[in-house]
Amino acid sequence: MRAEQLILGIPDYPAPGIIFRDIMPLLADGPALRATVDALIAPFLGTFDVIAGLEARGFLLASAAAYSTGVGLLPIRKAGKLPRPAASVGYELEYGVAEVEAHNDVPAGSRVLLIDDVLATGGTLEAARELLELLGYTVSGTAVLFEIDGMGGRAVVADPHLHTVFTSGE
Amino acid sequence: MRAEQLILGIPDYPAPGIIFRDIMPLLADGPALRATVDALIAPFLGTFDVIAGLEARGFLLASAAAYSTGVGLLPIRKAGKLPRPAASVGYELEYGVAEVEAHNDVPAGSRVLLIDDVLATGGTLEAARELLELLGYTVSGTAVLFEIDGMGGRAVVADPHLHTVFTSGE
Repeated sequence: MRAEQLILGIPDYPAPGIIFRDIMPLLADGPALRATVDALIAPFLGTFDVIAGLEARGFLLASAAAYSTGVGLLPIRKAGKLPRPAASVGYELEYGVAEVEAHNDVPAGSRVLLIDDVLATGGTLEAARELLELLGYTVSGTAVLFEIDGMGGRAVVADPHLHTVFTSGE
Repeated sequence: MRAEQLILGIPDYPAPGIIFRDIMPLLADGPALRATVDALIAPFLGTFDVIAGLEARGFLLASAAAYSTGVGLLPIRKAGKLPRPAASVGYELEYGVAEVEAHNDVPAGSRVLLIDDVLATGGTLEAARELLELLGYTVSGTAVLFEIDGMGGRAVVADPHLHTVFTSGE
């Protein structure tokens, strides 16, 4: 897919030795954006009632996916951003800890497709999956635009229905 | 529109005396999300080549709008989030200053529709408009889901093509 060539590798960001995957040029291209969103959700059509997206870049894919399939959108935010009481799950970062939060704004028992832009270590995605289960939802699958191989993310995300559109290869 | 009833007013958030407008329950409703995105962009169809959305809640509308019209998406981020050199415009907050940043990932001369969730004082939206012009783009219009009356935002946003779907009334 031509869209893959629009993902930039930024060396040594945010730290030396790390290649950051920048999806902004892909998003800026209308046909590539549509094709990518379609490819992201294709394996899951008919299996979900709601799309959940992770702040902030996940929002840029999840909203399009929700619109295209006519389902609702459940944003998963970083700690301290939601104005009402919210469910929360903590997870460890390389230095320190973080939390993801969301509301129960869709009915209990809803089937949720979880979407993010990049899979690296998988910590945030796995916390988001646990958060959705804590809220009483069933995770139908996890869809990620770009998987960075060799960082162990696929083993951390405890979802047998993990789909990634592009991968960095070895 | 039924969607309007799904916008929650949260009293005294983020500060006493302020009613925060929470669009999350609207987003969580599939038909309301689609109807709202369609109403947001309807006056501008055919006048833009790109959709720009403001971090973070603006992303939740802008991505759907870009997908639905087949155009590219240009995210406008808060300072320090972009991995490549970016254009930047500063603006004043009640306490302190802030910046918005974006890349020139779409061609110079592109016509851009600017999207955000809520218009209050208008400071961030006006900075975003200036940023798009600094990048060499033409702002075709500004589309906001919810306008809070009485906060002066409409006077601050220097765009004759400002469209808001819902308003708080007086």
